[in-house]
Amino acid sequence: MQGLDDIVRRKNIFLNADSDYATAKVVLIGVPMDWTVSYRPGSRFGPQGIRDVSEGLEEYSPYLKRSLAESSFYDAGNLILPFGNVVESLELISRVVRRVVEDGKVPFCLGGEHLISLPAVGEVARKYPDLVILHFDAHADVRDTYFGEKLSHATVLRRIKEIGPGVDVYQFGIRSGEAEEFEYGQTVTRMYPIEVLGPLEEVVLKLGSRPVYVTIDIDVVDPAFAPGTGTPEPGGITAHSILRAVHMMNGLKIVGCDLVEVAPAYDQSRSTELLAAKLVREMLLVIP
Amino acid sequence: MQGLDDIVRRKNIFLNADSDYATAKVVLIGVPMDWTVSYRPGSRFGPQGIRDVSEGLEEYSPYLKRSLAESSFYDAGNLILPFGNVVESLELISRVVRRVVEDGKVPFCLGGEHLISLPAVGEVARKYPDLVILHFDAHADVRDTYFGEKLSHATVLRRIKEIGPGVDVYQFGIRSGEAEEFEYGQTVTRMYPIEVLGPLEEVVLKLGSRPVYVTIDIDVVDPAFAPGTGTPEPGGITAHSILRAVHMMNGLKIVGCDLVEVAPAYDQSRSTELLAAKLVREMLLVIP
Amino acid sequence: MQGLDDIVRRKNIFLNADSDYATAKVVLIGVPMDWTVSYRPGSRFGPQGIRDVSEGLEEYSPYLKRSLAESSFYDAGNLILPFGNVVESLELISRVVRRVVEDGKVPFCLGGEHLISLPAVGEVARKYPDLVILHFDAHADVRDTYFGEKLSHATVLRRIKEIGPGVDVYQFGIRSGEAEEFEYGQTVTRMYPIEVLGPLEEVVLKLGSRPVYVTIDIDVVDPAFAPGTGTPEPGGITAHSILRAVHMMNGLKIVGCDLVEVAPAYDQSRSTELLAAKLVREMLLVIP
Amino acid sequence: MQGLDDIVRRKNIFLNADSDYATAKVVLIGVPMDWTVSYRPGSRFGPQGIRDVSEGLEEYSPYLKRSLAESSFYDAGNLILPFGNVVESLELISRVVRRVVEDGKVPFCLGGEHLISLPAVGEVARKYPDLVILHFDAHADVRDTYFGEKLSHATVLRRIKEIGPGVDVYQFGIRSGEAEEFEYGQTVTRMYPIEVLGPLEEVVLKLGSRPVYVTIDIDVVDPAFAPGTGTPEPGGITAHSILRAVHMMNGLKIVGCDLVEVAPAYDQSRSTELLAAKLVREMLLVIP
Amino acid sequence: MQGLDDIVRRKNIFLNADSDYATAKVVLIGVPMDWTVSYRPGSRFGPQGIRDVSEGLEEYSPYLKRSLAESSFYDAGNLILPFGNVVESLELISRVVRRVVEDGKVPFCLGGEHLISLPAVGEVARKYPDLVILHFDAHADVRDTYFGEKLSHATVLRRIKEIGPGVDVYQFGIRSGEAEEFEYGQTVTRMYPIEVLGPLEEVVLKLGSRPVYVTIDIDVVDPAFAPGTGTPEPGGITAHSILRAVHMMNGLKIVGCDLVEVAPAYDQSRSTELLAAKLVREMLLVIP
Amino acid sequence: MQGLDDIVRRKNIFLNADSDYATAKVVLIGVPMDWTVSYRPGSRFGPQGIRDVSEGLEEYSPYLKRSLAESSFYDAGNLILPFGNVVESLELISRVVRRVVEDGKVPFCLGGEHLISLPAVGEVARKYPDLVILHFDAHADVRDTYFGEKLSHATVLRRIKEIGPGVDVYQFGIRSGEAEEFEYGQTVTRMYPIEVLGPLEEVVLKLGSRPVYVTIDIDVVDPAFAPGTGTPEPGGITAHSILRAVHMMNGLKIVGCDLVEVAPAYDQSRSTELLAAKLVREMLLVIP
Repeated sequence: MQGLDDIVRRKNIFLNADSDYATAKVVLIGVPMDWTVSYRPGSRFGPQGIRDVSEGLEEYSPYLKRSLAESSFYDAGNLILPFGNVVESLELISRVVRRVVEDGKVPFCLGGEHLISLPAVGEVARKYPDLVILHFDAHADVRDTYFGEKLSHATVLRRIKEIGPGVDVYQFGIRSGEAEEFEYGQTVTRMYPIEVLGPLEEVVLKLGSRPVYVTIDIDVVDPAFAPGTGTPEPGGITAHSILRAVHMMNGLKIVGCDLVEVAPAYDQSRSTELLAAKLVREMLLVIP
Repeated sequence: MQGLDDIVRRKNIFLNADSDYATAKVVLIGVPMDWTVSYRPGSRFGPQGIRDVSEGLEEYSPYLKRSLAESSFYDAGNLILPFGNVVESLELISRVVRRVVEDGKVPFCLGGEHLISLPAVGEVARKYPDLVILHFDAHADVRDTYFGEKLSHATVLRRIKEIGPGVDVYQFGIRSGEAEEFEYGQTVTRMYPIEVLGPLEEVVLKLGSRPVYVTIDIDVVDPAFAPGTGTPEPGGITAHSILRAVHMMNGLKIVGCDLVEVAPAYDQSRSTELLAAKLVREMLLVIP
Repeated sequence: MQGLDDIVRRKNIFLNADSDYATAKVVLIGVPMDWTVSYRPGSRFGPQGIRDVSEGLEEYSPYLKRSLAESSFYDAGNLILPFGNVVESLELISRVVRRVVEDGKVPFCLGGEHLISLPAVGEVARKYPDLVILHFDAHADVRDTYFGEKLSHATVLRRIKEIGPGVDVYQFGIRSGEAEEFEYGQTVTRMYPIEVLGPLEEVVLKLGSRPVYVTIDIDVVDPAFAPGTGTPEPGGITAHSILRAVHMMNGLKIVGCDLVEVAPAYDQSRSTELLAAKLVREMLLVIP
Repeated sequence: MQGLDDIVRRKNIFLNADSDYATAKVVLIGVPMDWTVSYRPGSRFGPQGIRDVSEGLEEYSPYLKRSLAESSFYDAGNLILPFGNVVESLELISRVVRRVVEDGKVPFCLGGEHLISLPAVGEVARKYPDLVILHFDAHADVRDTYFGEKLSHATVLRRIKEIGPGVDVYQFGIRSGEAEEFEYGQTVTRMYPIEVLGPLEEVVLKLGSRPVYVTIDIDVVDPAFAPGTGTPEPGGITAHSILRAVHMMNGLKIVGCDLVEVAPAYDQSRSTELLAAKLVREMLLVIP
Repeated sequence: MQGLDDIVRRKNIFLNADSDYATAKVVLIGVPMDWTVSYRPGSRFGPQGIRDVSEGLEEYSPYLKRSLAESSFYDAGNLILPFGNVVESLELISRVVRRVVEDGKVPFCLGGEHLISLPAVGEVARKYPDLVILHFDAHADVRDTYFGEKLSHATVLRRIKEIGPGVDVYQFGIRSGEAEEFEYGQTVTRMYPIEVLGPLEEVVLKLGSRPVYVTIDIDVVDPAFAPGTGTPEPGGITAHSILRAVHMMNGLKIVGCDLVEVAPAYDQSRSTELLAAKLVREMLLVIP
Repeated sequence: MQGLDDIVRRKNIFLNADSDYATAKVVLIGVPMDWTVSYRPGSRFGPQGIRDVSEGLEEYSPYLKRSLAESSFYDAGNLILPFGNVVESLELISRVVRRVVEDGKVPFCLGGEHLISLPAVGEVARKYPDLVILHFDAHADVRDTYFGEKLSHATVLRRIKEIGPGVDVYQFGIRSGEAEEFEYGQTVTRMYPIEVLGPLEEVVLKLGSRPVYVTIDIDVVDPAFAPGTGTPEPGGITAHSILRAVHMMNGLKIVGCDLVEVAPAYDQSRSTELLAAKLVREMLLVIP
């Protein structure tokens, strides 16, 4: 309705995302996959839910004193994935992220389950072999196999660590896992149980200009602040703290990121989606 | 992400609406207004909710043995309305509908509250002074004033009747109102209390080729089938019956229509939005 | 705020109930008791919920073509009951209903669990020893004991039948119970399994001028129409049918009634409370 | 707590299922799989939900005038499936159902998504090559592939039809699908669109003593009666009608059955689970 | 039911409010207006919701070691407002508050949307031209216009600041707004972004005996503690902190106050209403 | 299905509880009683809800660096209680707990309302007359009578204190009650209003080897973290803090405990049940 575009809004994008892929610096990609979820499925509706509620947010951040209006990002919409087919879904994610990376842009995936981080990190690490992963989560996700499967949301950080010798993984806020996973977190990755802000402050200081990929599982936050997730784990940090964590990463060379495991059906109030949307806004403002 | 459009979906339209306004025959217009609602507000989220769940529907109708793929309609998105300003909101609706009518297309408004039918019918009646209104609703909506206001969801059908001497109003399924409204329904409009299918069958027979505007308030259906509405009224018809009603209008010269009062917040199951989406699909297939 | 009463509303009564007990013909009594409930408790919030949503209703009934404005009823509010003490609670109900009956008025109790009918019927039967009970319910409620208890929602109709030799009990719509209860329903009470309207039509014809007490358990209606109840039983009648049932009792000499088992917490849409409120309105108009 | 078993209840079985597999005639098997679901996942919680609410039901059926106490069935609990792995999950279902069939018992699977019917029917058809499938559903589920996949909830009835030349498929209540599916339903299976009871009555008459497998997708019922499902489709039959359908199959030689697509998260009132539980009870009483 | 008042409760007031307006010191006024809300409407049900849940509270405050029984307040009920008519609604609020102020009492409005503070403050400031506003909110609400409107929940604090030169506005906890609003908050009002308790402690010290009006938007609290609001903004303070804030105002000369934006429909658990009710109790105990 | 037990799970126990009562050290007992609840009933569904969601937890605790696999506990299931009969219900609880204590095991009751602690503590105190009660709660629960009743959830800690002269009661986090209760808490029990961790640290130090019974009312936690409870009281501690409290009791000689007042119906997200389940796990690991 070309002549009426001033009074009509076609809304399915995050806030006022740019309409031009070519000139955008960051690209939001919705990845509605939740086939390997072990407890409550539904994160396939996360990306669209986050977009929907973004309408309730301002573009300006009083924390960072910057506005999205000065930023440049494109919302690519949701991938069309074959339901229940894990291998093909991961390949499709790889294909899209690869293109974004090749085009010199920063991919920002909205999950979906945590397994989607594997192809995304894989493509980013292809360009940056010394990639540092900053992982915020309630769950360690470093099993070797889960119910016999190598590819699972419960094994994803281990698979990521195995991408290459240059890849380092820091894990924050972990408060659930098997004993073996916490051992792995002491010996292979660098895991900080339960705590987030203290350890993050130290880690940030020593990263210098290394390329960073940030992966936030919304369940790092306590279920009080984010009940809309598949495997809520009581005892997490506050919404205020995860916002602080994002602000502490201001200045890092972030070359990729994702936000996963938002499952709207379990939160009638939509607070989880709103928190996720606010985290997306702040991350967009922090990406250099 | 032009090169990736085959695997990425930008979804904020009703099912697979056409991408070209110019060639479309019907134009869907979201009208997120609910300022004069007297009981439970929230129908402003109706249009987007209907679009969201349309993903769960097929394009093919086994009732009509036709598919939307053969139809031609454009989803114009939602109007941007000034919250709480009734007069300006109605003017804005008029302006958009007028353009659609002038362009030779059929306007199909998704409410929002029932008052939005007034400017829409007004514009359609400007072109078709002998317009027949087929009104499906639990409430009579024919008061003269409501809490002192002339413009209200509770007065809208009376205002519509007053548009011009050529305008006829048929009311079906009415099961709530003041005594005066039922009197008005006997003398000025043609009101059929409680019943829908029987009376409709008779009315349809005598309409011939007169231009018809269909306005469906979702609460004509029983709250069991459509709990997500502002003023549910027990004792209504079934989802099956309202679908039948739509099919009975197949063959009429429908030149405008709307579907109003879907308020998603009161139906966690989303059944109301789904029923509305299915009604939109069937109406789109019935519009000649 | 005496001087401002025209613009301020103090609302905790059913619709526009009379403010004067002395002149009222019918007295609504809220009975928030649910201690003997076997499955899901919460009907203690039924009476207030019904009052709350009554705001969404008109006073005029297009079915009966009468308005509450012409009727005369008083809303006495909720009884203050000792939580968990069955015997004292029942005594308190008796005391209030007795007074209402002695004052020549018709008591109309809003439950609460079904056991509250026992003291209410007891007091009414004291005045009318040839009382006929018309009982609408999904459950037979005619066990002799339940988990060893004589006083239970599951035994209430049996206790009522035992009040005196003149008391007759007709049961409609029953679709759940033990085999023994259905036997009892063939030999002692007159039970019509599953069906409501057909049997009711016959029964009404032969009641003549006998005094009638009507007890409606909202779960006689299908859970689709009334999910907000403690023990929903699929396969019930529609909202439309229970309204019809009420209208069929127009003309009977109704001297007492109750509506029980509305448990708002299980129905986010509030449709159950609305249906109950509408039934209360229609019953008020039917009481002679 | 052996000495206290009289006062303690270990409840995770359907009503009062037998405790002995060896002597049971029917075996309930929970199949919590929902990986290929295309719209809303969550049916993995169906089987346990149905067991939970069965506590609210009686063992006696006033429809059939029989009690489960006279019946003999065992509740085997839920299968432990590898999340997201379709092929292995189906093999596991096959393995369990095969054992049940070999032991001369009737398997009764509780889904989970509809794809679980494929391995179940496969095993039953191995014993009864002339098996008749009675399929109740809103969706045709007879695509050849879905998003490129041969194994999907949307293709399951086609795969079932392909099991062998002796297998006949009757489909009732279908009201959603692609045009091709309705064609297939005219030429390959015997599909009755929208209607259930009329066609079923005719079909039952001609089945004689042929072995029958019944598969009920809960969404054959209207969302008003069963909102807790993944892909609700407005315009379905009532709870009363699906109960009638079960009763009409009384007398058939039922050798296997399933009830699928109950997704509790979308129905806060738990009415869907209750309807499913009641259908399970009635089916158990109808199985010869 | 005069003779039975000891056992019957007519409950539509906040806790055990006084029954006599004349002698009350504070007057609670329900203001069910939400017409200019920009995101999720529904705060019109806030006042009644707060009253409803107040039943779950004690009258005694262990924080302040005082009981409402020693306090004196009257609950005036809800204003009857013309739906959707902003100007008339504001005039009606003015009229009622003016009367309360003239009668020498402290008005305490329960919203409803934030715009209702404008007429309330206006009337109080007429008596106290040097009024200090203590404003607790997630949103700055100091735009000049919003979608072209001067009168909006998003402009209300600016309009309040403009009431007169003597009026001072302090804003606490603000974490959302446009850049211009935060500028305004530095230059015209005194805005403390994000923080509440620290700044409040300082401000309280310098207020001395100046008359104070307290306006609390429930969304100053994090959505975890108050999800039932129209525009939740993650990253807020805790319920414990807002209670502390109220206690820090003990000793101030509070001459008016309000609590706004409670929208019950978005919080199934009713925690938001309960927090609001507790804040009302504590405020009532703090008002001198 | 003996030969298939490796692939089928019969789940109605807490996590992987032992299957042998005889060798278990701790015995979980579900006590589904909520008859004396004064505000919102529903805690009868607490025990089963806690078991259900325990599936989403790991057996390993990263806080205590121990796993339930090394622990030994038996889940006895739910008691079968006579609905609404307080006296018999308490006797039944006594009978079961007595047996567990006599068998040298630690009873761990899952409520249900708080009154269930009375018989449980009674039996434990029979063996340990110098028992110390550590009570975590929002409410004092030390009235002498409540609505005339001696036995009530609101009087339970007073009744417990009266069990014998050797019994000491420490109360933490209390933030609601009558003035008299706070007096009682200063003179008879040792009550710490509002605070938990500070006072607990001190108390733990002086308990030495005295036998300890821990009773946790989930509402000691703020409604943000545990909305699913009967009488939520805003201003409580976090989930993180109650976990800390449990860990601080590590090393005490715990001889009995309970966790009460989880009412699942008020928390759609199931976060409350999950927090409760996690507390049960941590308590099981802390019991010596």
